[in-house]
Amino acid sequence: TVNGAALWDDILHTARFGGTPKGGIRRLTLTEEDRLVRAWFEAACRQVGCTVTHDSLGNQFARRPGRDDSLPPITIGSHLDTQPTGGKFDGIVGVLGGLAVLRALHASGHETRHPIELINWTNEEGARFAPAMLASGVFAGVFTEQEALDKTDRAGIRFEDALVGIGYRGSEPCGQHPVSAYFELHIEQGPILEAQHKTIGIVTGVQGIRWYEVTLTGRDSHAGSTPMTMRADALLAAARMIEAVNQVALAFGPDAVGTVGLIESRPNSRNVVPGEVFFTIDLRHPDDTVVVRMEEAMRAKVAAIAAESGVGLALDCVWDSPAVHFDPACIGAVRRAAESFGYPARDIVSGAGHDAAYLARVTPTTMIFVPCAGGLSHNEAESAEPGDVTAGANVLLRAVLDADAR
Amino acid sequence: TVNGAALWDDILHTARFGGTPKGGIRRLTLTEEDRLVRAWFEAACRQVGCTVTHDSLGNQFARRPGRDDSLPPITIGSHLDTQPTGGKFDGIVGVLGGLAVLRALHASGHETRHPIELINWTNEEGARFAPAMLASGVFAGVFTEQEALDKTDRAGIRFEDALVGIGYRGSEPCGQHPVSAYFELHIEQGPILEAQHKTIGIVTGVQGIRWYEVTLTGRDSHAGSTPMTMRADALLAAARMIEAVNQVALAFGPDAVGTVGLIESRPNSRNVVPGEVFFTIDLRHPDDTVVVRMEEAMRAKVAAIAAESGVGLALDCVWDSPAVHFDPACIGAVRRAAESFGYPARDIVSGAGHDAAYLARVTPTTMIFVPCAGGLSHNEAESAEPGDVTAGANVLLRAVLDADAR
Ligand SMILES: NC(=O)NCCC(=O)O
Ligand SMILES: NC(=O)NCCC(=O)O
Repeated sequence: TVNGAALWDDILHTARFGGTPKGGIRRLTLTEEDRLVRAWFEAACRQVGCTVTHDSLGNQFARRPGRDDSLPPITIGSHLDTQPTGGKFDGIVGVLGGLAVLRALHASGHETRHPIELINWTNEEGARFAPAMLASGVFAGVFTEQEALDKTDRAGIRFEDALVGIGYRGSEPCGQHPVSAYFELHIEQGPILEAQHKTIGIVTGVQGIRWYEVTLTGRDSHAGSTPMTMRADALLAAARMIEAVNQVALAFGPDAVGTVGLIESRPNSRNVVPGEVFFTIDLRHPDDTVVVRMEEAMRAKVAAIAAESGVGLALDCVWDSPAVHFDPACIGAVRRAAESFGYPARDIVSGAGHDAAYLARVTPTTMIFVPCAGGLSHNEAESAEPGDVTAGANVLLRAVLDADAR
Repeated sequence: TVNGAALWDDILHTARFGGTPKGGIRRLTLTEEDRLVRAWFEAACRQVGCTVTHDSLGNQFARRPGRDDSLPPITIGSHLDTQPTGGKFDGIVGVLGGLAVLRALHASGHETRHPIELINWTNEEGARFAPAMLASGVFAGVFTEQEALDKTDRAGIRFEDALVGIGYRGSEPCGQHPVSAYFELHIEQGPILEAQHKTIGIVTGVQGIRWYEVTLTGRDSHAGSTPMTMRADALLAAARMIEAVNQVALAFGPDAVGTVGLIESRPNSRNVVPGEVFFTIDLRHPDDTVVVRMEEAMRAKVAAIAAESGVGLALDCVWDSPAVHFDPACIGAVRRAAESFGYPARDIVSGAGHDAAYLARVTPTTMIFVPCAGGLSHNEAESAEPGDVTAGANVLLRAVLDADAR
C-alpha cells in the first residue's frame, strides 16, 4: 500500500505553487507557477529513484526501470495545471498519487517486469489554450505537434513561446514515447460516488464533448441616443443564445450538459451598445449520437436568434472529443484491485475529459475515481478526503502491479 | 464666422492621438494619448492668444481676456477623451469648435466684454472611470473631489494616480473657477437631425440617466460533470437579466432606452460553469418619473431572475443624473444665432449625457447639436459633415457674442 500521509503532504505542499487566498490554486499551464511545480515534480521523482525527461510539448516522464527494461512502460499520469480558480485535487491527485505508487515501489524495493512511468501532461485543463487535453491529444495523434505549438491564449501568446519561456520544450518528439498501458487516478468532479457512499469509481469511459466558438457582430452605438429599434446589440443576442444552450441541454435528458463558460464583449463600456461578442459553448453527452442532435438543435436556435437580433454570426466547432470506452482488461484490473481492498466501488462514466481519453486511442487505458465533496470541481473550494485519496492510490498501485503481471 | 477649414484640419490632426486602424479614436481619459492631445490643446490655444491652466481634476481652461476682465467668463467646452472604440467627433467637435471661436475672435481682434474661456473636461465618457461627466460633476458640486480621485478603473488604477501620472493634477481646486454662462457644441449622436434635414439642434435639455452595477454570485463548477439541475450559473442568470433590461426599455415607450454595455464573467474558462458575473445597466428616459418606474420594473425582474436562477444578487445604483432643462436665455441665444445664419434648426432633447448637464446646475447653460451620419456614435465609424460642423461652430460663436452683449 501507499504512504497516504506522504501523499497528502505532497498535495498540501504543491498547493503553494499558485495557491490562492481562498485555498484554491491558480496554476495555468506554461506559467511561472507551472514551471515551479514541474521543477518540484522532477526533484521528487528523482528522490524515489526515477530519471525524469520531457518531450517536445513539455510532457514530463518519470521513469522507474523494470526487470525487462526493453518492454514499453506501464504508465500512470494526470496533470498539474489548473483552472484560473481551480482546486487542489483536479489532476494533482493523479500525478501525486502516481508519485505515491513510485514511492511505495521504491520503499519496498519491489521490482516490476515493465518499467513504470509517471507522466505529467501539459495543458490538460484547456483553460489557457483550447482545447483541453491538448498535449495528450498530440501524443495520441489526434492533433499535430504544430497545431499545438500554434495555439494562442486569449492574450494572443503562442503555446510554443510559453513552452520555451518556461524552459520545457524538450527534444523527444511528442508521441514517440513507448507505452504499454495507462492508468489515471482522478477525483470524480461530480456528485455520484459521494451520494452513494462509494470510495472507488471504476471508470468505464468518458462522455462525448464538443466545443464551439461563437462570434457575433452587431454595431457599436450610443446607449443613450440609439433608439431600441435601431440597435444591433451583440450582447443581447449572446444572452438569448446562452439561454438557448441551457434549453438544449435540458431538452436532451439528465445526462446532457451545455455550458457557456467564456464570454468577451466589445468594446465593453457602460454606455456603448455592444458591437461584438465572443463566447464559447461546451456540449456533452455519453452517447455521441445525442451530442450530434444537441449540436443540431443548438445550431438551429443560435442561427434563428442571430437572424431575429440582426447580428452577424460565425459559429465554429473547435473541438470534437467523441465518447470513449476504456479497455476491459484495464477495467478488470481496477475492479479486482478495489475488491481486494474491500473498498465500496461502482462503475462510472466520466463527465469530464481526461488525458486518459486520448491515451485510450494508443494503449490499453482506464481510470480510477475517488469522491470529492459535493461533487464540486473547477472551484477553489474543491475538496477530497485523505482516506479516499489514499484508497485511490492503493487501487492504482495494485492495478499497475496486476497489469505488470499479465 | 469661424474658419471651417482650420476647424476640420484640427479634427483630422488631433484624431492621430489614439487613432485606430478603423479610423476611430481610442483615447481613454488620463492615458498617454490623452496627455498628448492635452499638450496639443494648450499649444493651440496659446497660438490664439489664450493663457491655459488646469484645475485639481485636470480640467483645462484656455482664457481669452475680456474688456472687463474681472467679470466671470462666458465659457465654452466639451471633452477630448473618447470611448475605447470611439469616433473622431464626440466631444472633440465641441472643444475644437470652441477653439475655432477663439481663433475667429483672435483673427478679427474682436474685444468681448467678458473674458471667454474654453474648457476641456476630464473623463466625460465614463468609459474608464464611472460615472460619465465626473469632473464637470465635481465642478458643479454633485460629487466631491475626493470621490473623483478615489474612483478606480476596471484594472484597479485610481483616478488620482492616473491624473498625477500624466502630469495634470493642478493646484486650483476643481469648482472654484468662476463662470457666467456655458455653451457646448456636440454631434447629436442620434438619428433625428439627419432624418429631418436639420443642420442645428437647439438643445432644450438632457434626459434622465441612471447607471447600475450588478454582481451575481453563483458557484464555479465543472462544465462536464455538474448536472444541469445542480448548477448555480451566474452567466445564465445574467443572460436572463440582459433580456429583462431590454424588455423593460421596450415596455416604456419609444423614448425609453436600456443597455447592458459592460460584462465580466469569472473565471471565464470554457469548461467552468461561471461562478460570478459583474455587469452594468444604463436606463434612460426624458421624464424622471418614468426613469423611476423603469428602475422599479428592472429591479423586480432582476430580483425574480436571481431567485429562480439560484444566484446571489447585489444591485447598486451608482449614478443618478436627473433630466436637465437648459436656461431659456441661453436657448434663445442659440435659436437667434441659428436663425441669423438661416440654418434649418429644431429643438431637441439630448439622449446622451454631457458636461453641460452638470454645468446647468451652476450657470446658465445650453447646447448646440449638429447631425452625425446615421445617428451613429460611440463607434469608430462615427462621422459628420464639415459644413454641419462649421455651422455649429458659427452658431456657437454668435450665441457667445449674444450672451456677452446681454
Ligand atoms: N479533468 C478536467 O477537469 N479536465 C478538463 C477537461 C474538461 O473540460 O472536461
Ligand atoms: N456624449 C457622450 O457620449 N457622453 C457620454 C455620457 C453618456 O453616457 O451619455
